[in-house]
Amino acid sequence: MAFDLNSDLGEGFGAWSMGDDAAMLDIVTSANIACGFHAGDPSIMRRTCALAVAKGVRIGAHIGYRDLIGFGRRALAISPEELRDETLYQIGGLDAFARAAGDRVRYVKPHGALYHAAAADRALAEAVVGPMREFDSGLVLLGPAGTELEGAARDAGIAFVGEGFADRAYLESGALAARGLPGAVLWPDDAVMQALSIARDGKANTVDGGSVTVRAASICVHGDSPAAVEMARRIRATLDDAGVTVTAFT
Amino acid sequence: MAFDLNSDLGEGFGAWSMGDDAAMLDIVTSANIACGFHAGDPSIMRRTCALAVAKGVRIGAHIGYRDLIGFGRRALAISPEELRDETLYQIGGLDAFARAAGDRVRYVKPHGALYHAAAADRALAEAVVGPMREFDSGLVLLGPAGTELEGAARDAGIAFVGEGFADRAYLESGALAARGLPGAVLWPDDAVMQALSIARDGKANTVDGGSVTVRAASICVHGDSPAAVEMARRIRATLDDAGVTVTAFT
Amino acid sequence: MAFDLNSDLGEGFGAWSMGDDAAMLDIVTSANIACGFHAGDPSIMRRTCALAVAKGVRIGAHIGYRDLIGFGRRALAISPEELRDETLYQIGGLDAFARAAGDRVRYVKPHGALYHAAAADRALAEAVVGPMREFDSGLVLLGPAGTELEGAARDAGIAFVGEGFADRAYLESGALAARGLPGAVLWPDDAVMQALSIARDGKANTVDGGSVTVRAASICVHGDSPAAVEMARRIRATLDDAGVTVTAFT
Amino acid sequence: MAFDLNSDLGEGFGAWSMGDDAAMLDIVTSANIACGFHAGDPSIMRRTCALAVAKGVRIGAHIGYRDLIGFGRRALAISPEELRDETLYQIGGLDAFARAAGDRVRYVKPHGALYHAAAADRALAEAVVGPMREFDSGLVLLGPAGTELEGAARDAGIAFVGEGFADRAYLESGALAARGLPGAVLWPDDAVMQALSIARDGKANTVDGGSVTVRAASICVHGDSPAAVEMARRIRATLDDAGVTVTAFT
Repeated sequence: MAFDLNSDLGEGFGAWSMGDDAAMLDIVTSANIACGFHAGDPSIMRRTCALAVAKGVRIGAHIGYRDLIGFGRRALAISPEELRDETLYQIGGLDAFARAAGDRVRYVKPHGALYHAAAADRALAEAVVGPMREFDSGLVLLGPAGTELEGAARDAGIAFVGEGFADRAYLESGALAARGLPGAVLWPDDAVMQALSIARDGKANTVDGGSVTVRAASICVHGDSPAAVEMARRIRATLDDAGVTVTAFT
Repeated sequence: MAFDLNSDLGEGFGAWSMGDDAAMLDIVTSANIACGFHAGDPSIMRRTCALAVAKGVRIGAHIGYRDLIGFGRRALAISPEELRDETLYQIGGLDAFARAAGDRVRYVKPHGALYHAAAADRALAEAVVGPMREFDSGLVLLGPAGTELEGAARDAGIAFVGEGFADRAYLESGALAARGLPGAVLWPDDAVMQALSIARDGKANTVDGGSVTVRAASICVHGDSPAAVEMARRIRATLDDAGVTVTAFT
Repeated sequence: MAFDLNSDLGEGFGAWSMGDDAAMLDIVTSANIACGFHAGDPSIMRRTCALAVAKGVRIGAHIGYRDLIGFGRRALAISPEELRDETLYQIGGLDAFARAAGDRVRYVKPHGALYHAAAADRALAEAVVGPMREFDSGLVLLGPAGTELEGAARDAGIAFVGEGFADRAYLESGALAARGLPGAVLWPDDAVMQALSIARDGKANTVDGGSVTVRAASICVHGDSPAAVEMARRIRATLDDAGVTVTAFT
Repeated sequence: MAFDLNSDLGEGFGAWSMGDDAAMLDIVTSANIACGFHAGDPSIMRRTCALAVAKGVRIGAHIGYRDLIGFGRRALAISPEELRDETLYQIGGLDAFARAAGDRVRYVKPHGALYHAAAADRALAEAVVGPMREFDSGLVLLGPAGTELEGAARDAGIAFVGEGFADRAYLESGALAARGLPGAVLWPDDAVMQALSIARDGKANTVDGGSVTVRAASICVHGDSPAAVEMARRIRATLDDAGVTVTAFT
């Protein structure tokens, strides 16, 4: 039984830093590296790619909206054509650093507001998948299963890998419960258990105390605070101890 | 006898446009396409690459400083490391569009203030050449002959092509006369003649009325005004009429 | 009978220009000057303010989203707090140039996607009006009548002036017909007549051939092409000839 | 005997933060607040102004180059006209928040590469001082004494206040020793003593072990790390204990 852990990395910009990338690269198996639009800059991209390769972590392009001030978290009425072109630019830019480090971009994961928008809108999902095909049809799309992203990938012949969340409760539909709902954010111990449950059984907690199937071969963990790093470390250790082979998806 | 004409293209940004790229792509044989730092955006890059390929024009990465407001024309104390990384990012980003259009980036030309800075400073010149080697050692560097750019390219095993200027008088040293000097900017008829002289004889006018050797296999022509387009057209016609084979450098 | 003509000006950025501001400042009585977020930069702001003052044209802050690449035309999920702060910053920045030119910012008009968003959402409308009160409670809000913008202004004790559109057909509700609808965009002769009708009778055409009341003391005219400037000139001449006193709203 | 402590504050951007502003505002008497060009954004400007007013700290505009990626630390060949306009815009923008908080901008201090460039170049110094006069001739310029900044301020009738540095050794000329020189950066204990020496006696250490006169009524302290905050706290306590009245310059 194999499972992947992914994390958002390289999210500084110039003199500003965010999170402890070096620590996270000892924990995860896939690195979603920011490409300069919502965060990241060329020097950070080079450093993060080099560190990922040195630690044997797979490199993915964490594409986002051109919105530094909003960190890519604000919904934006981008046209499918703009999104297609900004996606291709970001993949191309990051891949140059991945190659300079001796590897290449292996997958794409949309960030923040784009993640949600492209999951819900087929035209935007196709604008993510289209440039993946243009650039390298062997690229994998990492995102939420059962959404337009998965559908667009399947129709374009692009491999898709679903991801789950450790610290968030789900709805019965399989979607995440909105952060505002009571019980939507899990306590650390529960999050560690949910990570194991998703990895081993494909099951997550629902916000009303039940259980729901989650199709995922990867879990997203965060490193933007010391507590987040510690949580990621516990999840990794728990998976290791349970005999789950933590390794990059193929 | 073969000679190249190059021009700076794709220099709009969002709703703003600059120059008549379609007209210029009927005249020149090499397109220096902006990569989003001093000008250009992903959608413009896609359109310009597609149009260049459709018209059989070679694609080059016109790399510049991250300075939209200054259009890359302001000297900037960038470190060699930053320049190296920003160069690689720009080449990678543009190459994705060149490939989507069926070709690839074939050469690199620095823009504006970077052109002058890297010509004069070996560490900056190496920061341009280094990522060319990292990305594709078959890339050609286009720039002013006899400068640090040529030296850095030669030492790195990167092919170098010198370029001349039609409408600017030279100093005896082979450098361009500063714009402020009397006679530094040539009148249209003289510029057309100088283009032919550079292409056929490797000779250009000096500001004091003499002549100087210019090692160039390409001339840079501009398209940022109707008059500039017309001048480029006359230069092309004059070269054609004189039996110069206008074709992309190899 | 007095009526105002307003236009969006100062919409270049660095080396990029847009429209013929000098021509428009001979036609209009109110200048909506971009404040650097969707377009405009400090040097353009200074020049445009100075020219407006020299020509006796009133200065307004044309506030927009921080979105140069999208020219402020893309809907953006900005929070009311961010909008409030970005509005105050833009007003403060432009007012410094208005004062340097001998006048001051007299009104505020939202631009592009913000215009539509704040018209429809009370919290956003309040985020426009709030900083107007903070900065100078004598500022006037210019925008579409009968919307949340008008309501928020009224409740905050900020004067409101409605604006109409010459070249767009209306719905019976008083809202503009969407551009995609047949008949939504008026031909030049009809646009000139509609401008007169709005100014003199407070009436505009509906998309289905009827007529609707438009509460407006200003009409927005555009200058982004030679044809647009010519249209604006005809509207101004038609109003002058009909005895409408074209003057800035008070 | 009165003396001022100033610090660079409000230097985050969007999701990125820098330094512990709240802690520093308990220590210093003047707040150099970033204006959105090298750092800072409107929401940070509002919060920092409000906090400064709440704590009785004077507000200054910390103007910088438009260079977020370089944090305003890279020399840039800006023209005096551009600098003049960008300075006025930044002062105007920040003043709107200072007024919303119940105070106003009282002084201007150039940041980073601009600090050094304007100290050495009269045209740039005048481009800083000119818009101060335009905006409010009561504004004070804070910077290095004996430089073009002081000269330009004096000639324009703008009050000037010199600042010293606690943790840097000086040359006999009164200029700072370059960071690279041995002994150029003082150890914490020496820095605290130098702060007292500058405040009480107008004397600082030279890099070769001597002493030099420093005309300063303010010392710049940093808060970008816990150690920096602790150093600032020690300097404040040492001045207080020595009977120096730490208060904003007038």
